[in-house]
Amino acid sequence: MTFEEMWADLLPLGRDAAGGYHRFAWTPPELECRAWFAGEARRRGLDVEHDANGNMIAWWLPEDGVRENAVLTGSHLDSVPGGGAFDGPLGVVSAFAAIDLLRERGARLRRPIGVAAFAEEEGARFGVACLGSRLLTGAIDPARARALTDADGRTFADVLHHAGLDPEAIGPDDDLLNRVGCFVELHVEQGRALAEPVGVAASIVPHGRWRFGFAGEGNHAGTTALADRRDPMLPFASMVLAAREAAERNGTVATVGKVRVDPGGVNAIAASVTGWLDARGPDDASVRRTVADVDAAVRAAARPHGVTVDLAEESYTEVVGFDLALRDRLARVVKGALGGAPVLPTGAGHDAGILSARMPTAMLFVRNPTGVSHAPAERAEIADCLAGVEALAAVLDDLAAG
Amino acid sequence: MTFEEMWADLLPLGRDAAGGYHRFAWTPPELECRAWFAGEARRRGLDVEHDANGNMIAWWLPEDGVRENAVLTGSHLDSVPGGGAFDGPLGVVSAFAAIDLLRERGARLRRPIGVAAFAEEEGARFGVACLGSRLLTGAIDPARARALTDADGRTFADVLHHAGLDPEAIGPDDDLLNRVGCFVELHVEQGRALAEPVGVAASIVPHGRWRFGFAGEGNHAGTTALADRRDPMLPFASMVLAAREAAERNGTVATVGKVRVDPGGVNAIAASVTGWLDARGPDDASVRRTVADVDAAVRAAARPHGVTVDLAEESYTEVVGFDLALRDRLARVVKGALGGAPVLPTGAGHDAGILSARMPTAMLFVRNPTGVSHAPAERAEIADCLAGVEALAAVLDDLAAG
Repeated sequence: MTFEEMWADLLPLGRDAAGGYHRFAWTPPELECRAWFAGEARRRGLDVEHDANGNMIAWWLPEDGVRENAVLTGSHLDSVPGGGAFDGPLGVVSAFAAIDLLRERGARLRRPIGVAAFAEEEGARFGVACLGSRLLTGAIDPARARALTDADGRTFADVLHHAGLDPEAIGPDDDLLNRVGCFVELHVEQGRALAEPVGVAASIVPHGRWRFGFAGEGNHAGTTALADRRDPMLPFASMVLAAREAAERNGTVATVGKVRVDPGGVNAIAASVTGWLDARGPDDASVRRTVADVDAAVRAAARPHGVTVDLAEESYTEVVGFDLALRDRLARVVKGALGGAPVLPTGAGHDAGILSARMPTAMLFVRNPTGVSHAPAERAEIADCLAGVEALAAVLDDLAAG
Repeated sequence: MTFEEMWADLLPLGRDAAGGYHRFAWTPPELECRAWFAGEARRRGLDVEHDANGNMIAWWLPEDGVRENAVLTGSHLDSVPGGGAFDGPLGVVSAFAAIDLLRERGARLRRPIGVAAFAEEEGARFGVACLGSRLLTGAIDPARARALTDADGRTFADVLHHAGLDPEAIGPDDDLLNRVGCFVELHVEQGRALAEPVGVAASIVPHGRWRFGFAGEGNHAGTTALADRRDPMLPFASMVLAAREAAERNGTVATVGKVRVDPGGVNAIAASVTGWLDARGPDDASVRRTVADVDAAVRAAARPHGVTVDLAEESYTEVVGFDLALRDRLARVVKGALGGAPVLPTGAGHDAGILSARMPTAMLFVRNPTGVSHAPAERAEIADCLAGVEALAAVLDDLAAG
C-alpha cells in the first residue's frame, strides 16, 4: 500500500456532501478509521497495542528484542465537525509510509518505532481536546473525564464501556510512557506561514477554551414588551464582537465558533445561551487579558438586560516549547533530506504539546497551500505529502536506526 | 371528565425535566395529544373529522340534522420547543369542558359546534406557523408546504405520508370551510395586559419571520490570522444587536431566538451562520422598517469581513382585525356571564388570524399572571381557566343554541 493508496482508502470515511469530515471519537466513521489503522498495521506485521485510554499504537520492534526508549510517531484520526481530510490522518498515513521507505532501504532498528493514533484529539465529541493524550499523561483527572458528556448527553464513561473499554481503568499509564523515549508528530500546516514543503515546529502558542453561560428568561417573542425582556442572546452577541475587539487589542486570536440556544425557537426569546470562546496568543499574559476583556465586556452588556453570566475555563494549555535538542536534530536531518527546514511556531494544539510534559517531543509540518484548516478547503499537495514522508523517514532513521 | 381531569391527563405529555413542552407536529408526544383528543371526543359521542391537512375537528351536531353554518372553536395541541402548558391546549380542553356545561344545562343546538385541533400552529417543526390552517384556507401553496423540511431534513410530505396522510391531497378545503359559519378561539393571554379573568381580542398585530444567511469561510480558530478571516459569526452578532435597536427605534418588537452555526466547532471559525428574526409591530410599515433597518445594519457589518448576506422572508401576516360584529357580540355575552370583558390586541399569531380571511373569527383570552408564554413559566390560574370555560360556554350557547 503506497501513500496514495492508503490516502484513497481513508478519504471516503465520514465525509459529508460538502467534503467535510465528521469523525468523532467512537462514532461509526471513526471506528472505520480505527479498523483501517488496524488493517494497515496487520499488513506490515506490526502489533497494535490498545492502551486503557482509547489510544492505539502499532509497533515495529527491533530484532534484538529491545522494547525500551521507543521513538513514537503518528497523530490522530478523529476530526472536528466538517473538518478537513489532512488534520490528523496525514501524520498516521505518513508514519506507515515512512516505515515502508525505511524497510525498502534495509534499515535495521536500534529502538522500537511506534505509530500512534491518539483518541479524541479534537475534543469534538466530549469538549476536551487531546483527551487521549491528556489521560495517558495524567493531564486530566480520570473522574472528570468519565463525567464528560457528548451532545446527546452520553458520558465518556458510557461510550468507553460500549467500545469495550473499562472506564475505571483510564488515567496515567507510566508503564507505556516509560517505554517511549521521544515523540515526533507530523501534521499538515494550518496557516500559510510555511513556504517550503516541510518545516519543523518551534513551539505551540498558549491556547484555551472558555464557556460563557448566559441565563435570562424564556418568553414569547411577540407579546413580551422590550422593557420586560431578559434576553440572553443580546449579551451573547456582545461576546462575539468583544472577542474580536479583545483579540485585536491584545495581539491574539479569539473565536466564537459554537453556540447553544435554549430553547431555540424562532418565536421565543431564549431562556439561556451558551457561547464558547477559543483564544490563543503569543504568551500567557496576552491570552489571559483577552479572556478578561471579553468577560468584562460581556458582564457590562448583560447587566442592563437582567441576564446573569457564568464563565468556566474548559481547558488551557500554556506555551509549549518543544525540546530544543530534538528540534535542532530534526531541522538538521530534514535539511539534509530535502535541502531546507524552516522552523515555525503554530497556533494549533496537538498531542505533541501534551506529551511534551513527559518526554522530548517535536513536530514536522507539511505545507498547506490554502492555509485553511478545520474545513473542507484544508489541503496539501501530494508532492509535499511525499516530501513529508521522506523527511519523517529520515528522522526516524536518524533516531531509531542510522 | 372535568376540566381539571382533562388537564391532568394532558400535562405529562411531552414535558421535559424543566417543565417545558416539546410537542412538535407528528412527533410521538404530539401523537399522544392527538390520541387524547380522539379519546375525549369519543367519550362525548363526538365524531372526529380528519381533514386532508392534518387538522382534526370533533363535531357536536344538532338533532335536526343541520350540518351547515357551524360554530367552530378549539385551538391547537402542538408547542414551541420548551413551551408552556397552556398555549394551545387551553383552548381545546376549554372547548370540551364548555360542551359539557352546555349539555348539563340542557342546551339544544341550532348550529353544529366543532372543536378543532389545528396542526403545526407553532411552526416549530417545519418553520411555518399555522401551517394546518394556512393549508386549509389556501394561504400557503401546497407544493411549497410539501417541500418544507424539519431539523432532521425530513420533508413535510414524507412526515404526512408516514402519518397516513396523502401529501398530494393537502391544500384548500372549501367543502369544510363552507360548512363553518364562524370561528371562536380561546387562548391563554401571552402578556400581562389582561387585568380580568377573561378578555376579548381586538386584533392580531402584523408579524413575520425572516431568515438571514451569512456565508463566510470555515477555518482553524488558532492558525488563521484575524486579517485572513471571513467569520460569519461577527455579522450575526451585529444582527442580534441591530434587531433590538431597530425595534426600539420603530416601536416594534424584534427577537433572534434561533441560530444555526455550521460546522459549530469550538476550535473552528464558522463557515456559515443562519439567524432567524421574528418582528411584530402595531402596523405593517413599522414592521417593514424594522426588518429593513436590520438588513441594512447586517450588510454594513458583513462587508468588511468578506461575508455575504442572504435574506429570505419565511412568513408574514398583515394586521388581523377580527370581525367587529362577532367581537362585540362576544364582549356582550362574556360581560353578561362574568361581569366584565376587556377588549385587547395581541402580539401573537393564531389560527384565528388565518381563518379570519375566510370567515368571521373572534378570540377569548384567559388571564396570565406571569405574562410569560412560550416558556415553562406560562401560567393561568384554575379559577381563571374555569371562568374561561364559563365564558366560552355562554358564547357557544348564544351562537349555536340560545
